Amino acid sequence: MSHNTFGHLFRVTTWGESHGPALGCVVDGCPPGLRFKLEDIQVWLDKRKPGQSRFVTQRREDDLVKVLSGVMLDEDGETMIATGTPISMLIENTDQRSKDYGEIARRYRPGHADYTYDVKYGIRDYRGGGRSSARETAARVAAGGIARLVVPGVTVRGALVQIGKHKINRANWDWAQVDQNPFFSPDPEMVPVWEEYLDGIRKAGSSIGAVVEVVAEGVPAGLGAPIYGKLDQDIASLLMSINAVKGVEIGDGFASAELTGEENADAMRMGNDGNRIFLSNHAGGILGGISTGEPVIARFAIKPTSSILTERQSIDADGNNVDVRTKGRHDPCVGIRAVPIGEAMVACAIADHYLRDRGQTGRLK
Amino acid sequence: MSHNTFGHLFRVTTWGESHGPALGCVVDGCPPGLRFKLEDIQVWLDKRKPGQSRFVTQRREDDLVKVLSGVMLDEDGETMIATGTPISMLIENTDQRSKDYGEIARRYRPGHADYTYDVKYGIRDYRGGGRSSARETAARVAAGGIARLVVPGVTVRGALVQIGKHKINRANWDWAQVDQNPFFSPDPEMVPVWEEYLDGIRKAGSSIGAVVEVVAEGVPAGLGAPIYGKLDQDIASLLMSINAVKGVEIGDGFASAELTGEENADAMRMGNDGNRIFLSNHAGGILGGISTGEPVIARFAIKPTSSILTERQSIDADGNNVDVRTKGRHDPCVGIRAVPIGEAMVACAIADHYLRDRGQTGRLK
Amino acid sequence: MSHNTFGHLFRVTTWGESHGPALGCVVDGCPPGLRFKLEDIQVWLDKRKPGQSRFVTQRREDDLVKVLSGVMLDEDGETMIATGTPISMLIENTDQRSKDYGEIARRYRPGHADYTYDVKYGIRDYRGGGRSSARETAARVAAGGIARLVVPGVTVRGALVQIGKHKINRANWDWAQVDQNPFFSPDPEMVPVWEEYLDGIRKAGSSIGAVVEVVAEGVPAGLGAPIYGKLDQDIASLLMSINAVKGVEIGDGFASAELTGEENADAMRMGNDGNRIFLSNHAGGILGGISTGEPVIARFAIKPTSSILTERQSIDADGNNVDVRTKGRHDPCVGIRAVPIGEAMVACAIADHYLRDRGQTGRLK
Amino acid sequence: MSHNTFGHLFRVTTWGESHGPALGCVVDGCPPGLRFKLEDIQVWLDKRKPGQSRFVTQRREDDLVKVLSGVMLDEDGETMIATGTPISMLIENTDQRSKDYGEIARRYRPGHADYTYDVKYGIRDYRGGGRSSARETAARVAAGGIARLVVPGVTVRGALVQIGKHKINRANWDWAQVDQNPFFSPDPEMVPVWEEYLDGIRKAGSSIGAVVEVVAEGVPAGLGAPIYGKLDQDIASLLMSINAVKGVEIGDGFASAELTGEENADAMRMGNDGNRIFLSNHAGGILGGISTGEPVIARFAIKPTSSILTERQSIDADGNNVDVRTKGRHDPCVGIRAVPIGEAMVACAIADHYLRDRGQTGRLK
Repeated sequence: MSHNTFGHLFRVTTWGESHGPALGCVVDGCPPGLRFKLEDIQVWLDKRKPGQSRFVTQRREDDLVKVLSGVMLDEDGETMIATGTPISMLIENTDQRSKDYGEIARRYRPGHADYTYDVKYGIRDYRGGGRSSARETAARVAAGGIARLVVPGVTVRGALVQIGKHKINRANWDWAQVDQNPFFSPDPEMVPVWEEYLDGIRKAGSSIGAVVEVVAEGVPAGLGAPIYGKLDQDIASLLMSINAVKGVEIGDGFASAELTGEENADAMRMGNDGNRIFLSNHAGGILGGISTGEPVIARFAIKPTSSILTERQSIDADGNNVDVRTKGRHDPCVGIRAVPIGEAMVACAIADHYLRDRGQTGRLK
Repeated sequence: MSHNTFGHLFRVTTWGESHGPALGCVVDGCPPGLRFKLEDIQVWLDKRKPGQSRFVTQRREDDLVKVLSGVMLDEDGETMIATGTPISMLIENTDQRSKDYGEIARRYRPGHADYTYDVKYGIRDYRGGGRSSARETAARVAAGGIARLVVPGVTVRGALVQIGKHKINRANWDWAQVDQNPFFSPDPEMVPVWEEYLDGIRKAGSSIGAVVEVVAEGVPAGLGAPIYGKLDQDIASLLMSINAVKGVEIGDGFASAELTGEENADAMRMGNDGNRIFLSNHAGGILGGISTGEPVIARFAIKPTSSILTERQSIDADGNNVDVRTKGRHDPCVGIRAVPIGEAMVACAIADHYLRDRGQTGRLK
Repeated sequence: MSHNTFGHLFRVTTWGESHGPALGCVVDGCPPGLRFKLEDIQVWLDKRKPGQSRFVTQRREDDLVKVLSGVMLDEDGETMIATGTPISMLIENTDQRSKDYGEIARRYRPGHADYTYDVKYGIRDYRGGGRSSARETAARVAAGGIARLVVPGVTVRGALVQIGKHKINRANWDWAQVDQNPFFSPDPEMVPVWEEYLDGIRKAGSSIGAVVEVVAEGVPAGLGAPIYGKLDQDIASLLMSINAVKGVEIGDGFASAELTGEENADAMRMGNDGNRIFLSNHAGGILGGISTGEPVIARFAIKPTSSILTERQSIDADGNNVDVRTKGRHDPCVGIRAVPIGEAMVACAIADHYLRDRGQTGRLK
Repeated sequence: MSHNTFGHLFRVTTWGESHGPALGCVVDGCPPGLRFKLEDIQVWLDKRKPGQSRFVTQRREDDLVKVLSGVMLDEDGETMIATGTPISMLIENTDQRSKDYGEIARRYRPGHADYTYDVKYGIRDYRGGGRSSARETAARVAAGGIARLVVPGVTVRGALVQIGKHKINRANWDWAQVDQNPFFSPDPEMVPVWEEYLDGIRKAGSSIGAVVEVVAEGVPAGLGAPIYGKLDQDIASLLMSINAVKGVEIGDGFASAELTGEENADAMRMGNDGNRIFLSNHAGGILGGISTGEPVIARFAIKPTSSILTERQSIDADGNNVDVRTKGRHDPCVGIRAVPIGEAMVACAIADHYLRDRGQTGRLK
């Protein structure tokens, strides 16, 4: 993985800035014959879309995706059939307010990538964070929309499991609840708690971190290329590439440090149907970098949005001490919208490894 | 990163199994003119070497590294000068006891990669775990020995910060202590606690997880290639590729989830010497995927060794239920020896990004 | 290089079919701070554009390029400054006549990729050849427009040196002539010969092959990464990736087979100005895969356009014998328009190797 | 492809210099379950081995290959079974005469890579050409030995078709003759001609160029990944990476430039057995970058060995004009030993594309 492309046989290249005319991606390696409708992709962009509740940024973007290549239309004039050639997707930026950013053109917002981009590139598109803006993740979500369809029978779902110190009660986990609240919470009892807590954060012009969990079910056993193309490694890499992510776990993750060998090693048995069964899943569906057939479980921590209304000490490009206060529209908890992004990344990693195993066209011969 | 190679301009390919004649690596992209002695690499292999205390595996390996290519000897007959061509290094396996493994040739040890390798490859070198053995990490450590020398002024150091529930007291952190105890503990007060605790684990034939922290100081600002070649992403990828690692953090990591924007965003000021100063380092030295010039801080969680003396339920390759007990020599806490391995991975990631910035030969023209 | 992306640090991804809404490319790795105007890219697209003389296809495409990302506008509102982030470029398809292609939807045109795409993908965009159409090369030429600017002082120029059996007289070579005739011939005396010859070919509904020569001057010595990233290797790879190319040469190429060691090895001398001088350039500017500082010289052979009016024996997708005659608009000698395409490929290879040597941002620090 | 690794799913990394202790390669991606004996690889090394006739270098190397990893021994104690993990192979250098090279340590031999390596790396292993020596190709041939076994039913054979101006008569082509003469000539009538001609060259201390042709039969249709991973592109890339190669052709190659569309486009018909048949093979088995099922045909031109006894004008590392005469043992026509090397490269490209299509393990599930 390097620069703006990831993946080996299912390759995704993204491009675009927060305040340019458009952003997009090229998905290279979609198996030929794959059928989908525009809405199969749009549905995930809608899930990530800003402005859907008071807990996320009020920027208004329709985020309508266009498919420019790589498909033929079926006779219904609606179903697209992938031809195996690169699928270029484009999303226009419509609600850009560049004037909001004028005053921070030369000031480094603490916690943002302003300073590091300037050091590296010597030039920086300061409007809305430019390339380092979370808007780039719309392109990931579009790519993920296709990735989700590549492996037959795989379902990738995510949920928010922690905001600040408030963690969900895992005993209450109900996937059906996730889309019923603005937080993607699987625990309905946590919703009012988060609501009140985040209202406080939002009104204070502050922000808070969060943890997202992604679960992929139906992943066939055998995916992953040890030693340096392990499935968990590629998932960790892609999750860590999401803006503001500071930690990644697979299965029991950091809790593994407190387990004994007896507690940790998932026992196996032959099931009545002749299938192999794991009696637990501390491993999060991956052993030795290769999928076990159990659900693949990943979690990631998102730091609080760095754009806050409180003044913070900083410097400017000319070497002056300044105090920076970030106006404009922002997410009080950027972790919320990270749920569909995390799903997309896990889906892409799984699709890529599936094709590495099955061949680039995914067509058995 | 794919299969058995990682890195972009500083590329490392490793090969070898636990019980073959040898293992090794090819380091491709070492800057020409780099000077080192064999002991500059050997010192790290010695640090990782088994059999150095009762808390690690009693397998005896000298782990003497040979350099087969890519260097010319200086007039002192000892100093090697890299020529810019691939450096092939080889480490012989000397203490192999294949008979220890005979009875698990067809049995899947819970928590190990036995089952997944069989599913994927249909064949498996069962002797000592074959390719999935932690012996592969000797090759990483050798490569890391060179990587450490690539970036002038960079120091990469690691320490063990947690065994089971026992965490060090960070107020006691003293780098000078790390090499004074068999645990690489930076907190001398924790040493007797861990000693007693691990003795119990060891005598019970059990094992326990751990957490390692790696700190790289002197990393120049500007390293990292957003969006999909972020420095933290590549560090996460390489740390997650180490056997038994289940979680990775950068900077505050999962603790970021509990921070507000005010607490998290590291403020900046101009220093008296005209340098830019960060007033804190929650970010762990990386913003937007690019190094800030502050110390790069990474942590990773290692699950307990899966080889334990207690019988565990499992199955065999023929689909029978069996009970598996892993005899042979093993680490009660594999996390201890993971310290130099984690250092090596961080050093390799930094070297790679340094060369991406400076050019493959690292020679300014 | 794989699928639809090429390059290592200067990476180009192209997408798009002959008859989709648009085609384009993403140029990843353009050095930040590079300044250019849209016309600096458009000028090369204009050179490649169809419909400019009776000797090329009469398809009418404006081939106007748009830049969607990766740049900021300078104060003149016209000059673009690269920010180091991916540059997405888009070219709309305007003159598509899909009905021309209806009858060959299931018939394999001899010499075309119809059959092989069907075998590989099981589905094929038959309209205008879909992805295998030479229209894809417009995206390469756009990318090449940027590549030409990456290395200071490098000039990449191409010329047509052979059509059918008619070869130019190298003694007449005059670069100033190349843009003065519809064939990019450097030999003005060859123009009337080719004119008459190609008129005959065109009127017969036939086609003919050609040879293009590309010369890059000002290439600094030292570019190229042996053993498997040699500069000549990457140039050969990219030239061979152009539609219809069947052979590639560097320097004396196949004529080297007839030379003795004395004739072939370019002697060196110190020049009066203290520079190193090669007394000849049989090597075509590359020794051991690394540039010498002499002009890099590459040639490639293009087979005749496979679309011809004469009926040819073939089969269809259902396994029937059929006779195929390709109607529609085609190039009697596709080699003519291959000149700017070959230039673009050589420019991209040089830019990529320059950045490998200088670092991804090309910014010395 | 970059630095010292090539291939995508069948990846080969080579290392080693002419005068180091050993050279070798790591073959990553060999399908698990592949069975072979050491002699299946050794046979090709023997074919490439120096010192087998008076027409090749008199350096004596046994070139015995060792396999260090990636296989398990079958019960016969001889048959190796690939496990899917990297296969490391090592060949010792035994007949090194470094003193032969002392006087050219700082002199640039015309036609060699001495000057360019010095410019690029600032340091150079001058002993026998170091890394730029053709000895590196022994590692390629070993890798090719495995590659040949990857695709069931594929046969890759090469022959020398031209030395100097003396070309074989294709009407006399007889594969059975190739191993019956020291030139790998398929035309027995050419053998005495070449013998006499090369004796003259050799006695004069001179050298001469050559052309090699490689034919791969049994290649399944559908291999190749357009647009930038075309099968012909990857073959061209690998052939051009061989030392001294200056030109590459597929199928009719440069002769295509003189063909009309009618002559060039290979017609198709349904065969009596229901198979698709090409009535000719001008394309050399590849259309649109994808294999047709016809024999894949590639040719490459090798320049004359640059090491000659005649004095040539040159310079040294200190900027002095010098006259260089290359003593030591050399091939009067390095093209002869290039035959098995070219075969190996074509075999590797085909194996790689086969696995891209079938999946990294080549195991259909």
